[in-house]
Amino acid sequence: MDTKGLRFDAINLGHGSGGIMTRDLLDKVIFSTFDNAYLNQKHDGAIVKFDGEIAISTDSFVVSPVFFKGGNIGELAVNGTVNDVAMCGAIPKYLSLAFIVEEGLKMEEFIQIVESVKSAADESGVQIITGDTKVVERGKGDKIFINTTGFGEVHPKANISSTNIKAGDMIFVNGYIAQHGMAIMSQREGLEFESTIVSDTTNINFMAMNLLDKFGEKIHLFRDPTRGGVASVLSEIATDIGMGISINENDFPLEKQVVAACEILGLDPLYVANEGVFLSIVSADVATEFLAEMKKDPKGINSRCIGAVTLEHPNKVVMNSSIGGKRMVSPLIGEQLPRIC
Amino acid sequence: MDTKGLRFDAINLGHGSGGIMTRDLLDKVIFSTFDNAYLNQKHDGAIVKFDGEIAISTDSFVVSPVFFKGGNIGELAVNGTVNDVAMCGAIPKYLSLAFIVEEGLKMEEFIQIVESVKSAADESGVQIITGDTKVVERGKGDKIFINTTGFGEVHPKANISSTNIKAGDMIFVNGYIAQHGMAIMSQREGLEFESTIVSDTTNINFMAMNLLDKFGEKIHLFRDPTRGGVASVLSEIATDIGMGISINENDFPLEKQVVAACEILGLDPLYVANEGVFLSIVSADVATEFLAEMKKDPKGINSRCIGAVTLEHPNKVVMNSSIGGKRMVSPLIGEQLPRIC
Repeated sequence: MDTKGLRFDAINLGHGSGGIMTRDLLDKVIFSTFDNAYLNQKHDGAIVKFDGEIAISTDSFVVSPVFFKGGNIGELAVNGTVNDVAMCGAIPKYLSLAFIVEEGLKMEEFIQIVESVKSAADESGVQIITGDTKVVERGKGDKIFINTTGFGEVHPKANISSTNIKAGDMIFVNGYIAQHGMAIMSQREGLEFESTIVSDTTNINFMAMNLLDKFGEKIHLFRDPTRGGVASVLSEIATDIGMGISINENDFPLEKQVVAACEILGLDPLYVANEGVFLSIVSADVATEFLAEMKKDPKGINSRCIGAVTLEHPNKVVMNSSIGGKRMVSPLIGEQLPRIC
Repeated sequence: MDTKGLRFDAINLGHGSGGIMTRDLLDKVIFSTFDNAYLNQKHDGAIVKFDGEIAISTDSFVVSPVFFKGGNIGELAVNGTVNDVAMCGAIPKYLSLAFIVEEGLKMEEFIQIVESVKSAADESGVQIITGDTKVVERGKGDKIFINTTGFGEVHPKANISSTNIKAGDMIFVNGYIAQHGMAIMSQREGLEFESTIVSDTTNINFMAMNLLDKFGEKIHLFRDPTRGGVASVLSEIATDIGMGISINENDFPLEKQVVAACEILGLDPLYVANEGVFLSIVSADVATEFLAEMKKDPKGINSRCIGAVTLEHPNKVVMNSSIGGKRMVSPLIGEQLPRIC
């Protein structure tokens, strides 16, 4: 990136004016980084070709701090939306990228975030095709917020819908839970403690698409438990399908450090946000092969079956606890960890 | 909208948690307002069918104040993106909708904004198919920011590209300029003055599509002069095409009030943002019919030809002033009016 010509070492309101300073920032940072034919149209939008079904997902990222152990808001904004598109059973292809920057953000931080967007996009196989940059006055934002909207081609074998879920379906998770939320929490002002917990932010689209290649319609639902964690997502699903979900406490893959940090802070890992984790609800007849296939993927080595769908306790999630009891898992009500993604 | 069940009279962090409060807000305000089959999938994204070329455009709206004369941030966020899609020569069909709300925004204001989004979407013929709601702490945002990303089918007769522009092409505008920027400015703290200037925020997609129906490839470029105003957009175009643009000061449609307000504040209306205005660059052989067709539209009654593309003064915009002189029109450099859209 040729940033020598950038005349400012921090973002200021002029960068959001729509005039020469905006154009300068776009040319020197955005267009030079993402250089592709779509973006180079330099129009108010991009034209792409699509035939068939497209999955579309949008997310704004407001994580604080914007730089955290294991990543920054730039890659989070790419991975989060790429994963949401994949969870719809679609192959992510394109992203739009919109920044709301607070005046005063250091130019080097902005550039670092843009570079992370680029490398995360490359890793996920998506192109940034259109964008927007707005600047708000100091104190009217928080360094940087990013919106990404993603577009993907629906996988030819996908038939992802909660209406396909049946009693007896098995529920799988691809790895350690609660990593992202606890990484953010461990860095928050006033709550800092000794920890090397890193965010699990990563793309899981290739792993999900491979599972669709192999198991097609046997996969009834994909869902990534970000805000609200595994408990909130499962509760939502139980309500949607009008059946029960039974999970086993002992089966959740959890890192020791995360368990310890949750204990110190009085948090339940089931409610903590994840970024590189996804749940699959799958027909029981392929359960063994499905788990074996998951474990072959580097992002699925710690995959587990965590539970099943049941006709008992409709609309409710019940956990078989490690000491042999049963407890109801409610969805999160208010806020456990704000600004997590 | 059944808002009786809303247990809070202001947005708080719990509404962004991903838990029950989020679900409650979505069910009672968002899903009930936008009720459609796409949104009712209640997944992380929506699946839509498309065949052929799609125009995609994204914009974040950070206007301050969020309620202004002639509209609010909700309809601005719809019209702005609808218009950007139309400027690509495409029929707007779908929007994604992402809110970043500052804790403490009054629930009634949030609902009013959501209702404006709905009515603006209905008026433009677009559906809200997926969305996101984040909440940031008090002092980390400014009431509400909205990102919309729009998708449209490219009009079968459209061939919109600055590479099609030729010397001799005529440049048209559909109405009074500088209304939006001056409406916002007239309400800003410390700058309030007696004025009834209202924002021109509106959709111009139907007008633009009708012109494409009638004139097809004779239309070389559409562009809406929002941030940076007419001067910045024309300067950008002149640079892109490597030709000159000649405009006539006397031909710009301007309301008296706007001229007066600009004089008081020392602003040049050519640099002030517009929201319901678009420029068309059109082959000279259809100029007369084009202008006549524009004037038939209620949103084009005040249409004018404001200038032409020329081989003289390449890369530069030159204005023939009202007193018979010529002056160079530079693009905006820094910021004239921040947070205008």
